Amino acid sequence: MSTVVTNCPRTEQAVVDGLAACGVATVHEAQGRTGLLQSFMRPIYRGARIAGNAVTVSLPPADNWMIHVAVEQCQAGDIVVITPTSPSDQGYFGELLAQSMIARKVRGLIIEAGTRDTAELTKLGFPVWSKAVSAQGTVKETIGSVNVPIACAGAIVEPGDVIVADDDGVCVVKREEAAAVLAKAKAREDKEDATRARLQAGELGLDIYGMRERLAEKGLKYVDHGSWKAAASKTGG
Amino acid sequence: MSTVVTNCPRTEQAVVDGLAACGVATVHEAQGRTGLLQSFMRPIYRGARIAGNAVTVSLPPADNWMIHVAVEQCQAGDIVVITPTSPSDQGYFGELLAQSMIARKVRGLIIEAGTRDTAELTKLGFPVWSKAVSAQGTVKETIGSVNVPIACAGAIVEPGDVIVADDDGVCVVKREEAAAVLAKAKAREDKEDATRARLQAGELGLDIYGMRERLAEKGLKYVDHGSWKAAASKTGG
Amino acid sequence: MSTVVTNCPRTEQAVVDGLAACGVATVHEAQGRTGLLQSFMRPIYRGARIAGNAVTVSLPPADNWMIHVAVEQCQAGDIVVITPTSPSDQGYFGELLAQSMIARKVRGLIIEAGTRDTAELTKLGFPVWSKAVSAQGTVKETIGSVNVPIACAGAIVEPGDVIVADDDGVCVVKREEAAAVLAKAKAREDKEDATRARLQAGELGLDIYGMRERLAEKGLKYVDHGSWKAAASKTGG
Amino acid sequence: MSTVVTNCPRTEQAVVDGLAACGVATVHEAQGRTGLLQSFMRPIYRGARIAGNAVTVSLPPADNWMIHVAVEQCQAGDIVVITPTSPSDQGYFGELLAQSMIARKVRGLIIEAGTRDTAELTKLGFPVWSKAVSAQGTVKETIGSVNVPIACAGAIVEPGDVIVADDDGVCVVKREEAAAVLAKAKAREDKEDATRARLQAGELGLDIYGMRERLAEKGLKYVDHGSWKAAASKTGG
Amino acid sequence: MSTVVTNCPRTEQAVVDGLAACGVATVHEAQGRTGLLQSFMRPIYRGARIAGNAVTVSLPPADNWMIHVAVEQCQAGDIVVITPTSPSDQGYFGELLAQSMIARKVRGLIIEAGTRDTAELTKLGFPVWSKAVSAQGTVKETIGSVNVPIACAGAIVEPGDVIVADDDGVCVVKREEAAAVLAKAKAREDKEDATRARLQAGELGLDIYGMRERLAEKGLKYVDHGSWKAAASKTGG
Amino acid sequence: MSTVVTNCPRTEQAVVDGLAACGVATVHEAQGRTGLLQSFMRPIYRGARIAGNAVTVSLPPADNWMIHVAVEQCQAGDIVVITPTSPSDQGYFGELLAQSMIARKVRGLIIEAGTRDTAELTKLGFPVWSKAVSAQGTVKETIGSVNVPIACAGAIVEPGDVIVADDDGVCVVKREEAAAVLAKAKAREDKEDATRARLQAGELGLDIYGMRERLAEKGLKYVDHGSWKAAASKTGG
Repeated sequence: MSTVVTNCPRTEQAVVDGLAACGVATVHEAQGRTGLLQSFMRPIYRGARIAGNAVTVSLPPADNWMIHVAVEQCQAGDIVVITPTSPSDQGYFGELLAQSMIARKVRGLIIEAGTRDTAELTKLGFPVWSKAVSAQGTVKETIGSVNVPIACAGAIVEPGDVIVADDDGVCVVKREEAAAVLAKAKAREDKEDATRARLQAGELGLDIYGMRERLAEKGLKYVDHGSWKAAASKTGG
Repeated sequence: MSTVVTNCPRTEQAVVDGLAACGVATVHEAQGRTGLLQSFMRPIYRGARIAGNAVTVSLPPADNWMIHVAVEQCQAGDIVVITPTSPSDQGYFGELLAQSMIARKVRGLIIEAGTRDTAELTKLGFPVWSKAVSAQGTVKETIGSVNVPIACAGAIVEPGDVIVADDDGVCVVKREEAAAVLAKAKAREDKEDATRARLQAGELGLDIYGMRERLAEKGLKYVDHGSWKAAASKTGG
Repeated sequence: MSTVVTNCPRTEQAVVDGLAACGVATVHEAQGRTGLLQSFMRPIYRGARIAGNAVTVSLPPADNWMIHVAVEQCQAGDIVVITPTSPSDQGYFGELLAQSMIARKVRGLIIEAGTRDTAELTKLGFPVWSKAVSAQGTVKETIGSVNVPIACAGAIVEPGDVIVADDDGVCVVKREEAAAVLAKAKAREDKEDATRARLQAGELGLDIYGMRERLAEKGLKYVDHGSWKAAASKTGG
Repeated sequence: MSTVVTNCPRTEQAVVDGLAACGVATVHEAQGRTGLLQSFMRPIYRGARIAGNAVTVSLPPADNWMIHVAVEQCQAGDIVVITPTSPSDQGYFGELLAQSMIARKVRGLIIEAGTRDTAELTKLGFPVWSKAVSAQGTVKETIGSVNVPIACAGAIVEPGDVIVADDDGVCVVKREEAAAVLAKAKAREDKEDATRARLQAGELGLDIYGMRERLAEKGLKYVDHGSWKAAASKTGG
Repeated sequence: MSTVVTNCPRTEQAVVDGLAACGVATVHEAQGRTGLLQSFMRPIYRGARIAGNAVTVSLPPADNWMIHVAVEQCQAGDIVVITPTSPSDQGYFGELLAQSMIARKVRGLIIEAGTRDTAELTKLGFPVWSKAVSAQGTVKETIGSVNVPIACAGAIVEPGDVIVADDDGVCVVKREEAAAVLAKAKAREDKEDATRARLQAGELGLDIYGMRERLAEKGLKYVDHGSWKAAASKTGG
Repeated sequence: MSTVVTNCPRTEQAVVDGLAACGVATVHEAQGRTGLLQSFMRPIYRGARIAGNAVTVSLPPADNWMIHVAVEQCQAGDIVVITPTSPSDQGYFGELLAQSMIARKVRGLIIEAGTRDTAELTKLGFPVWSKAVSAQGTVKETIGSVNVPIACAGAIVEPGDVIVADDDGVCVVKREEAAAVLAKAKAREDKEDATRARLQAGELGLDIYGMRERLAEKGLKYVDHGSWKAAASKTGG
C-alpha cells in the first residue's frame, strides 16, 4: 500500500501568496473556523509567515526514509507536510534535508513529530512547525507514502491543498476552495480595518457590534460592587 | 447567575507599581510561596514585566463574548484575567480586542486558554500570558460573568487583586495584603543584594547561610570517589 | 543513604570542548543514537551551545538544599545536572545560585524540574535547560546526594560524564567513551560537509545515498495522480 | 498566613444527600454548567457516588502535614478537598489517613495531586478522586491552611460547599445555592424521564426538541452521497 | 459548508463482523500497521469488542447539536465517530443520546473529546471510546457536518469505513480494503495459533523466527556478567 | 555497543517474595522515599502485586526485536523491564511474547512505552505496567542491549535489582540493599499496625504523632469561622 503519487495538481500561485498575506487567523475565520492544525504545532523561530502547496508524507514511526523520496516530488513554492503513523517526538528532519529542500525552493516544513538542527535551520531561514524539537535520529528501514491524503495534527491534508503558517500556527485550505477563501479573507481584512480604527478611538465593541440588547435578553445583570458584597456576606460564603 | 460587578475597588497604584518592580519570583517568596499561577502560563514574548489591578472574566468554553463586556469595566492600569468554565486551548483573544484594551490603558492579559495574532500583539507591545497560542476562533452565544472571583491556572483571583507577571510566570497578590507584601518583597531584595555580593566574591551558600552543621545533623556524609567506587564494586552493582 | 562523593574524575577538557563544537545532534548520532535526554528539556534562551563535566544532584521533591552542597563540588568547566526523586515543575534554581556557580566557572545547568529568574539568567548568559519555568520556591529541609549516578529526563548520568547541550536539547556521553565519540563525531561532520555541497547543488538524497534500488525492493510504487484518482473514484472512498 | 478556620457552617444534610442522588452530570447542568472540576480528576475505583460538605486543605508541595490537622475539623458526612500550592503527582494520602477519616465518618477525598494504597482504599470502600496514583511519600515540615477558600482542579471550593462526585468526575455546589440547585436538578430529572421514554421508543431528538427548523435556518444542507461524490470528483480532491 | 451526506455506502456486514472477531491488534497488523487511532482513545469500560460502519460527525468545539442530526443517519450496525474542530475534553455525549442510538441499533461511539454518564452507559452496555470522561455539558448553537471525511485521533475516517474497537484501542479499515484486510487478518490468526503452541511449549522466538544469524550480523555481542563487570571497573564509571 | 550480559546475579528469592508482600508504598518509604518509577506507569488490570529480579532491556524506538533476545535470559521469578531510547507509546509487547515469558515463569513486565493484547494478557493473568495501551506494532530492524543499566520512568534499574509492582505503581530496590530494605519495611508494617488500631478507635494523628506543639511553633493559628468572616469583610475581599 506504499505509494508515491506524482504530478499532483497545485493551487494557483497568486491565490497561495494572497493567503500568506492574510495570515492564519484571518484565513481560518474566512473558511468558517475549520482547517486549523492543533495548537501543539509551534514554529522553531518567530516571525515567519508562509503559504505553499502541500506535498504530503505518511511515514512509519522513527523512520524518515520517505522524506528523501518526497523531496523529489517537490516544486518551487511547495510546503512539505509530514505525519508518522504513530505519535512520535523524534527528530525526523534536520539541516541536510533542509538544504535539499531549499535547492528545490521548498518554502517550509510542517511535521507532527520532532525536528532537529534548529539553530542551523534558523540561520538558513527555513521555517519548520513541529510538535517537538529533538536531536533523536531515525532509521531508514520501512517505506510509507507520498502525496496521499494524511491527517496532520487533527486536520486532513491532501496534496495541492494550501498550507498557511505563521506565529499563530498552521491552517490548511482545500485546493478547490482556496480562491473563494481568499476572497472572503480579504473582505474580512477590509472590515477589520474599519473596526480597528473605531476601537483605537476608544469606541467599545459592545457598541460597534450592537451587543447590548442581546446580552440583556440573555439575562446579563450589572450589579454595583457594594450591593454584590452586601448580598454575599448576608448569605454566608 | 451571570453577573457583571461594577465599580470594584482597586489596589493603590503605587503599591501595584512597586510590586511590578520586584518581579514575580520575589513577590511570590515575600507572600509565603503562595499565589503563583501554574507554570503552563507562558508569555507570548519575552521581556515584559507588569503589574496591575485584576478585572476577572469567567466565560463559557469556546465563547469570547464576555471579553467585550469586560473591556467596558477596565480602567487605566488594569490587567484582564480570563478563565473558561472548562479547559480550552482556543484563541479567545486577538489584535482587535487588544486595540480596544490599549485604548483604555489596560496593561496586559492573563488567560487560561489560547490567544492569537501573537505577531501583531508583539508589535503592539501588549503582553499576554496564556496556556496556548491558537488561531481557533470562538463564538458569541452564551454569557458569563465579569468581576466575580475566579480560579485561574490554580490560583483564586478576585477583582482588584494585584497581578504581577514577567518571564517567570504570573502571581496574584490579595488586595488587602498588597502593601504588606510589597514591604516584605523590598526587604527581601535588600537582603539578596548583600548575599549576591558575597556569592559573586566566591563565598559559598553553605557558609553564608550556615548550613554545614544542620546538614551533618541530618546525616549527610562525604565520601571520596575512590572509596565509594571500591565499596560499590565489592557489593556488586 | 545521602552521600556527597568528592574528587570525582573528569573527562579531559580538550575532548569536552571538541564535543561542544560538534553539537548535540551530531554527538548523539556519533554514539549510536543513545544518550539523548527527553525532548521536554528546553533551553531558557536560544543560541547557547556548551559542554562540560557533569556534577550530579539527586534531591527530594520541592527541596533545593542539595544544590548549595553541590556548588562546593564544582570546578571550572562543570555542568550541574539535577533530578528530583519525584517529578516536579517547581523553580529549584534562580539567579543567586547562578551567581555562585558563575564564581566557580560552572558552564550551565540541566534540571528535570523548573527554574526561575529567567530574565536575569539570560542577562548573565548562564544557560539552563529545564522542564519548566516556574517562580515556585522550594524548602531546605531534606538531604539528598551529590555525584551519585542519576536518571535525568530518561538518561543515566554519572559524575564526570560529558554533557553537551544546545538548542536541540541535551545529550550525555560516557566519560570512558568520550574520546572515541569525539573522533566519530568529527568524521561524521567531514562526511556531512561533502553531502551538504551536493545537496545544495540540487542532487537528490535518493541518488547520493543510492536509495532507489532498495526502495523498489521494499515495494514502493509510483503512480501518476490521474491514474490514482481514477482508481480511487472507481472503488468509492 | 497559615490558618485553621473552625466551626464552619455546613449545608443541610438532606440537601447534600439529594444532590448525591442526582449525580454529577445532572447537578452540573442544573447550576448552569459551572462548578465542575477538571476532567483529570478520576476515581480510584468505579461505582462510588457521594456528596458531602467540603473541608478544604491548602498545603505546600510534597508535604502532607496539614491533612492530619484537617481530620480534627471533620464531621460525619464531610468530604475533604485538598490542593497543594504547586502542582504535584505525589501520594499525599494513604490507608492510615483513610482509617482516621473513616473513624470520623468522612465520606471521601478529593485531591488535586496523588494518592496511594489504592488497593487498600478500594477494600475499605473509601473513595478518592485524584490527579494521579503514586506511592511517592511526602514530608511533614511546612504548614498550610484548613477551611480557607481553595482552587481545586479549576474550581473554587469554600468550606461547607457541597461536593458531588461519581464516575463522571467532581462538581462543587455553593452552600447558599445548594437547595435551589437541588430543586432544578430534580426538575431536570423529571423532564429527562419523559424524554428518555420517547427516545427509547425510537423518536428522534430532532423531532422531540423541534430542531429541524432552526437547523435549516442556520443553513444545514442534506446531500445524497451520489451527488456529493460526483461534485467532489469534478472539483478534484 | 455544513453538510449532511445521506445514503452513504456501507461495508458488508459479514466482513464487519469478521473484523470484530479478529480484534484491533490483529486487524491493524493485517493492514500494514496503519489506521490505528492514537492511544489516548480509551474505552469507558473494559471487555467490549465491536466493529461497525462509520457514521462520521464533524462538530464545533463545545457544541453537540450535530450528534442529534447524526442519529437520524444511523442504521443497525453503525458506529458513530465524532471529532470537534478544535481539541476539547467536554462531555458531548451522555445517556439520553445513547438511548436514541440504541433504539437505532448503533453499536457504539468513538469520540475525540469527552463523554459523560459513564455509570449509566456501562449499565446499558453501550461502549464508548473517548479522550476524556467529563460531565461538562455543551451548547446547541452552531452547525457542522455529518458523513464527510474527518480526522479522528490521527486517522482519517470516511463514512462506511469499518471501525474496530476493543480494550487495545480503535482502528479504522477503509471500506474498499475491508474484505482483503479480513482475509489477511484471518491468515495472521492461523499463523499465530501455530506459533503460540510452540512458545507455550518453551521454544524461543529467537529459534522459531530464525533470528540468531541476523542479530549476529547486526553486531549483537554476548558477554558474561563477570567479564562485563571487570571491564566496567577498569575504565571507571 | 549493543550487548547482552549473561549470567547476571539475582537477589535471593526469599527477600524478593518478602518485598512483594510489603507492597510498593511500604517498600518505597522503607528505603528513604527513593526508587519509585513515575506515576504514569499504570497496571493494565487491577489487583496484581508482584516482585521479581529485573532483566533489563534497552531498545530503539518502534522496534521490539530485543524483547525476543531478552526472553532467553529470563529465569523463573524474573520481571522484564524495558525502556526505548526515545519516548514512545507504541505497543511493543503482546500476547505471544507473554506466552513465551510465561513458559519461562517470568512474573510480569514493566515497560516505559505501550503494550497491546490487554484483554488476552488479563485472561492469562500476566500483569504489565506500562505508559500506554496501544495496538501499534513495531519492527525488528535494529538491535539494543539486554541486562545493562537502564533508566525506566525516572529510576535507574540494573539487572538483578528487585522490582516491586502493585496498583500503586512500580518501585526498584537495589540488589545489594534488598535485604536491609525488607527488614525496614517489615518494621514499618509492625509500627503501622499499632497506629492503625489507634486511628480506627478514633484517636487523632495530631495526638498519636505528638504534632500539636511543633505546629504551634511553626505558627499555625486556629480562628473561629465567625471571627474569620468578620475580619475578611472588614478588609474587603
